[in-house]
Amino acid sequence: MTSISLITIGGELLRGRIVNTNSTHVGSLLRESGFTLSRNVSIPDFPETIRSVIEEEWAKHDVVLTSGGLGPTQDDLTKETLADLFNCKLVMHEPSLRSLETRFAARGYTVSERNRQQAMLPEACEAIPNPKGTAPGMLFQKDGKILISMPGVPFEMLHMMKNAVIPLLKEKHGAELFLHRTLRLRKISESVVALQVEKIQDEMVKGIEIAYLPRDDGLWLELGLRVSPDKKVWAEDQLGDAFRLAKNQFEDQVYAEGEASTAQMLGERLIEKGLRIAVAESMTGGLVSAKIVSISGSSTYFEGSVTAYQIHQKQALLGLEASLFEAHDVVSAEVAEAMATGVRKLFNTDIGLATTGLAEKEKESGRLPQLWLGFADKQETSSRHVELYHDRNVNRERAAHQALIYALEMIGEIE
Amino acid sequence: MTSISLITIGGELLRGRIVNTNSTHVGSLLRESGFTLSRNVSIPDFPETIRSVIEEEWAKHDVVLTSGGLGPTQDDLTKETLADLFNCKLVMHEPSLRSLETRFAARGYTVSERNRQQAMLPEACEAIPNPKGTAPGMLFQKDGKILISMPGVPFEMLHMMKNAVIPLLKEKHGAELFLHRTLRLRKISESVVALQVEKIQDEMVKGIEIAYLPRDDGLWLELGLRVSPDKKVWAEDQLGDAFRLAKNQFEDQVYAEGEASTAQMLGERLIEKGLRIAVAESMTGGLVSAKIVSISGSSTYFEGSVTAYQIHQKQALLGLEASLFEAHDVVSAEVAEAMATGVRKLFNTDIGLATTGLAEKEKESGRLPQLWLGFADKQETSSRHVELYHDRNVNRERAAHQALIYALEMIGEIE
Repeated sequence: MTSISLITIGGELLRGRIVNTNSTHVGSLLRESGFTLSRNVSIPDFPETIRSVIEEEWAKHDVVLTSGGLGPTQDDLTKETLADLFNCKLVMHEPSLRSLETRFAARGYTVSERNRQQAMLPEACEAIPNPKGTAPGMLFQKDGKILISMPGVPFEMLHMMKNAVIPLLKEKHGAELFLHRTLRLRKISESVVALQVEKIQDEMVKGIEIAYLPRDDGLWLELGLRVSPDKKVWAEDQLGDAFRLAKNQFEDQVYAEGEASTAQMLGERLIEKGLRIAVAESMTGGLVSAKIVSISGSSTYFEGSVTAYQIHQKQALLGLEASLFEAHDVVSAEVAEAMATGVRKLFNTDIGLATTGLAEKEKESGRLPQLWLGFADKQETSSRHVELYHDRNVNRERAAHQALIYALEMIGEIE
Repeated sequence: MTSISLITIGGELLRGRIVNTNSTHVGSLLRESGFTLSRNVSIPDFPETIRSVIEEEWAKHDVVLTSGGLGPTQDDLTKETLADLFNCKLVMHEPSLRSLETRFAARGYTVSERNRQQAMLPEACEAIPNPKGTAPGMLFQKDGKILISMPGVPFEMLHMMKNAVIPLLKEKHGAELFLHRTLRLRKISESVVALQVEKIQDEMVKGIEIAYLPRDDGLWLELGLRVSPDKKVWAEDQLGDAFRLAKNQFEDQVYAEGEASTAQMLGERLIEKGLRIAVAESMTGGLVSAKIVSISGSSTYFEGSVTAYQIHQKQALLGLEASLFEAHDVVSAEVAEAMATGVRKLFNTDIGLATTGLAEKEKESGRLPQLWLGFADKQETSSRHVELYHDRNVNRERAAHQALIYALEMIGEIE
């Protein structure tokens, strides 16, 4: 197996000022292409650290990728280190200089001596174009090994990974297939799932990789199998058997398969059934609506939403009766259902979906975080209760996903 | 300076299935306490890798922190490696076993032989309680060095960092102060800011650390100074001078100081002025509302919102005239202002805020992503145009922040 190390360079990563999404993206792109990232080292941009870590990783791995340390606000540490390592000097790379001049001219700047240095590259490298930014990437090949230096700006790096790095790795190192299938579970904890998977794992083909991925919409249980391309058909069969076994085991908790977002799945189901939806929100405060709108083309099934954050607005906008609030708490099945009915009428849609809940513990009453979901269609209304265990904003995020999942399930039952 | 390495253990990190927020949190907590994380290494949970990387980092650093590799779904690799490294055997840790039994009993499970092993700890370590989960942390001290092994579950690890690790590090290694101030800029790119900072940097005290942090609400320019506690007053003065210099330089781009979220700043300003707000959204689809509600106590100034995703809903709910849409595009200053006025009337608030825009390039017309913001108070209405440069959902996220910043600025002008 090809051993690949990623060195992410930048003090902000270590000071916790920037989340290291570059390593997530690199790991994910490699995985999709059948490779596995063996190690990720994050270091500050100190010359001696960059030098020693690049040397260490180069000695240990077949492929070394670096990101960061090339920008206009940094010195040329990475490049000088690489020139040393590959025993060459920095020379002006004319195409990169011209690209830099064009970009600067467009902004009305002239290229200073310092900026010109961005176009200086180690003589031994092959430049990798960076159409999204100013600093080109660098490819070094020696003794069958590869080192690629990429910029740290996420969308520049991502573009270079997809268009240059992955194709090169595939060409040089072939690639295994990584087949995988995902089961989405709700109302069950990772440790309970793990205990139950243990019971069925012996019945699965050897080599199945199991991943437990806690997400805001529930627990993702991923089954994967890594094989050479000629075994693809056999592996798909085996993976299918294992997947059915797991699906059986978690019958009551499975709410979906695959990796689509909850909003995307809901959108597909609404299109399939030819239904339009509107949303009334209280505790989620617009998050359910925002998730629905995050899907391109949602205007074909989404009419709109109302966030009625106060009781009197629930009355004025959604038409809830004052007597309802005399008989029931604002966080109740009755209010959730009335909100769903109200918003369905207000927007004149097939479906109304509503949330009312407590994002955090209520100080006066001591009531714990919880959620009531309401659903209304032409025939009837219904509701579901969900307990929440985290802090205010994690609870709101999870509540929004639970609302989408609830709608998904209820719409599935409409004939 | 104390050299600290964090080893994050887990294959999901390297497969890009989980974002490495543990390293962000550890980096951030260390920074707040005057420490700096020197290195972060992410590795899969293979015995030989865990062993070799722990040994390497232990040789190089004063403090080694690990997270992950302790859960019920993993083998005891980390613990066995640590027992070997510190020359001891695994023994049953009775308090941890009792805590495990209590937790399992509550769920109706009995503790299996395998689960019991979670309570086995290397004899040489001191157990660190984990009130948030089942696997205790482990503290090893030898030759003036410290090794702490923490669970990988983010909220368990975070709790242990705050309550056990940081206090211990402060006690053992003292701590420098890291003073910092943040300037928030909009409508300017990192490279332009960097060029302008270069011009004034010589006038600042030596040792000022400058960080450029691109965020969804704009560019955060952070000035920091690391000093021993006895130099605090001097350092605050110096940092204040440098901060004023930067503020002067970017006068036209500064929209705020400090690190509060845009929603929090808006909330504080609304409370200060005694004003209540309502929001009408189109392109942002509920995101502006959701951000406002993310702030605890927002019910004192937030009445609610309407997402009117279709023209006919903008008419029906917000009272916009059909003639408006004959004269103007739906993405226009006029529509944004009318939406702001409409939602202000609908919810009977002091302020109405509205968004209408294109989250992505419009296929038919070729119009680029853009945003019109509308603002209405008792006296007048106004609008602002914002260009957007990214993909659908980054644009929506940025648009929501721009709406909050716009409201913040406009409310600042109300007497």
